[in-house]
Amino acid sequence: MKAVVSLNSGSSSIKFSLFVLDTQGALQFSAGGKIEKIGIAPSLKVRSVEGAILLERDWPDGASLSHADLLADLFAWAAEYPLEGREIIAIGHRVVHGGTEFAAPRLIEPDLLDALEALCPLAPLHQPHNLAAIRAIAALSPDLPQVACFDTAFHRDKPALAARLAIPRALHDQGVRRYGFHGLSYEYIARRLAEIDPALASGRVIAAHLGNGASLCAMDAGRSIDTTMGFTALDGLMMGTRCGSLDPGAVLHLQSQMGMSAAQVEELLYKRSGLLGVSGLSSDMRTLAEAGTAEAEEAMDLFAWRAGREAGALASSLGGLDGIVFTAGIGENDAAMRSRICRRLEWLGLEIDEIANAGNGPLISLPDSKVKAYVIATDEERMIALHTLKIVEKAE
Amino acid sequence: MKAVVSLNSGSSSIKFSLFVLDTQGALQFSAGGKIEKIGIAPSLKVRSVEGAILLERDWPDGASLSHADLLADLFAWAAEYPLEGREIIAIGHRVVHGGTEFAAPRLIEPDLLDALEALCPLAPLHQPHNLAAIRAIAALSPDLPQVACFDTAFHRDKPALAARLAIPRALHDQGVRRYGFHGLSYEYIARRLAEIDPALASGRVIAAHLGNGASLCAMDAGRSIDTTMGFTALDGLMMGTRCGSLDPGAVLHLQSQMGMSAAQVEELLYKRSGLLGVSGLSSDMRTLAEAGTAEAEEAMDLFAWRAGREAGALASSLGGLDGIVFTAGIGENDAAMRSRICRRLEWLGLEIDEIANAGNGPLISLPDSKVKAYVIATDEERMIALHTLKIVEKAE
Repeated sequence: MKAVVSLNSGSSSIKFSLFVLDTQGALQFSAGGKIEKIGIAPSLKVRSVEGAILLERDWPDGASLSHADLLADLFAWAAEYPLEGREIIAIGHRVVHGGTEFAAPRLIEPDLLDALEALCPLAPLHQPHNLAAIRAIAALSPDLPQVACFDTAFHRDKPALAARLAIPRALHDQGVRRYGFHGLSYEYIARRLAEIDPALASGRVIAAHLGNGASLCAMDAGRSIDTTMGFTALDGLMMGTRCGSLDPGAVLHLQSQMGMSAAQVEELLYKRSGLLGVSGLSSDMRTLAEAGTAEAEEAMDLFAWRAGREAGALASSLGGLDGIVFTAGIGENDAAMRSRICRRLEWLGLEIDEIANAGNGPLISLPDSKVKAYVIATDEERMIALHTLKIVEKAE
Repeated sequence: MKAVVSLNSGSSSIKFSLFVLDTQGALQFSAGGKIEKIGIAPSLKVRSVEGAILLERDWPDGASLSHADLLADLFAWAAEYPLEGREIIAIGHRVVHGGTEFAAPRLIEPDLLDALEALCPLAPLHQPHNLAAIRAIAALSPDLPQVACFDTAFHRDKPALAARLAIPRALHDQGVRRYGFHGLSYEYIARRLAEIDPALASGRVIAAHLGNGASLCAMDAGRSIDTTMGFTALDGLMMGTRCGSLDPGAVLHLQSQMGMSAAQVEELLYKRSGLLGVSGLSSDMRTLAEAGTAEAEEAMDLFAWRAGREAGALASSLGGLDGIVFTAGIGENDAAMRSRICRRLEWLGLEIDEIANAGNGPLISLPDSKVKAYVIATDEERMIALHTLKIVEKAE
């Protein structure tokens, strides 16, 4: 039985999922897991589709273990694991940045890897880790096909205006432009919505990927035409620890008037801002909802107010709105936050069905609501596996 | 006959207007002028209300002349000028920043000047010039009452959420928050709209101040509840040479990956971006409209697209939209740009009357348009004079 692995290698964690091809040729999730706290005290946990723990390992003194070391360990386990005749035919990777060139997933070849390496300055916090995993696996298993799936690709064909920043053209030509991210999630949502509500999927829809990272995507007939994340994943919505949109003058002020270095500002805006910064408490919406302090309440209010504001901006890009889809951690599970955001969109004709919303949908708007609202679970891992399978089948 | 002067002292220019009190106690514009190119080769021109040139002067070798030197010269002329019995009873100043404290115009006293000096780090490019003019006049005429009118004041009472950036609370408490600017213009527009269309003025209106600097203000019953400029006048709409909203990650990238200093980035984003940067040609909309190049066309398109996007965001803050008012250089005179922006707002129910628009309004929406659109000339100088008169009358 053939199997495909999807892999998401970040700065301090590696997530992976194993999908097997069933007799109909469809991908079935089989097992998945995560290596966490890389660089501190790594730990690994693998679970089966039924939730049973297949493997658990800790390296309390493993601060020096690299992504490659840990992937080698995982491979050694996989070799021992009773794969019951399953043959891993390819590994698909989430690669954050495809730059201006890559509008679709690609089979990894040495030339491609060089081209992706050249994009590291555009995503210095993520791209190097994505590529390190590809190299590590190539070293362990040189003949195993690997596929790069780009988080920017879904937004690649949006209108030219939506890609342009109001800075000198030369900088745009050097790549300083609005790319957009969370593309694998949006692509999955576009595909699922077409199954669930084809009429809506052919209209003007905002997909709201609200996780620890968060963005909105304006989809016209399933294609991205605008999104709130821009050149980096720092822009747009307020996030767990990221500031989202911020007056560029404030970035300069922190340096010129408050004596911070660019590196300190980067750390501040990526790691200590957003919900954490405003609440002074936590980046986790659940913790804030339980806390009940004025600061936690304000952080949640600001999150919803800004989401409403950005949704208005994207509705303008779309020339109106037919529906909104909530997804990712907060979007799928936080009924109270969905309700706050939907109430901020009442002016667009959205009437939330609070009972359906409390039950997590999928449809959470009232029957007469002019704008429909859905909750749909995203599955970036499956999207990666689907792309990967398609690419290796084509290559055969 | 009593007279009031309003004065706007910038980095390289000083604008001033003389208003006289008529027998009904109303302010009538009498004369006005501008000292330009301060620090290079200053020149002064004063015109009467009929447009006659009252005074013209050039200092081709005057690069070293300060704002104070030039104001002294202007005062010397004013002393000679046949004021026909007019007595200047006060001078009102545009002061860009009132910080968190000043929600209304204030009579200048030594304590106030110290407090305003402390706000210079929040507007280092503008505030010092505003205050220098106040000090220069105090030195020339110590007994003449002076009034500070703040560009931030009109936005001072907007909801707390609209003032907050998603950064740590301590920075907000230190003043890094969204203030908003162009407040004197918006206050004037709110006042004029209440005269022209009281029903609309009591509703949800976006005022679009589109000049070389540009912003939008969301007014609910004439009060600012949100605006596109933020902590500085760099945020929000694309402008003549300013970038408007920009991914904070792009600011950091220009430094960390492209080797620019914070000062170089500041110069880039304030002076070489916006319409100038995108067109590669000019910061002037008229020049772009005549140029007809693809780049000029794209710059104008981006300006309109972004204005539409920000209007959608403000409509969300307002919970819907009843009208829009265009003002300032572009807003009052550029029918083609107004038309582009209005067409981007059709989805909100705005139907432009192209014939009325070509004639610069004032009403430029069709009779059945759900959202009304107006062109109203702004007059910040008169607003300053009105405030100044009120303050000195109260002080008497």
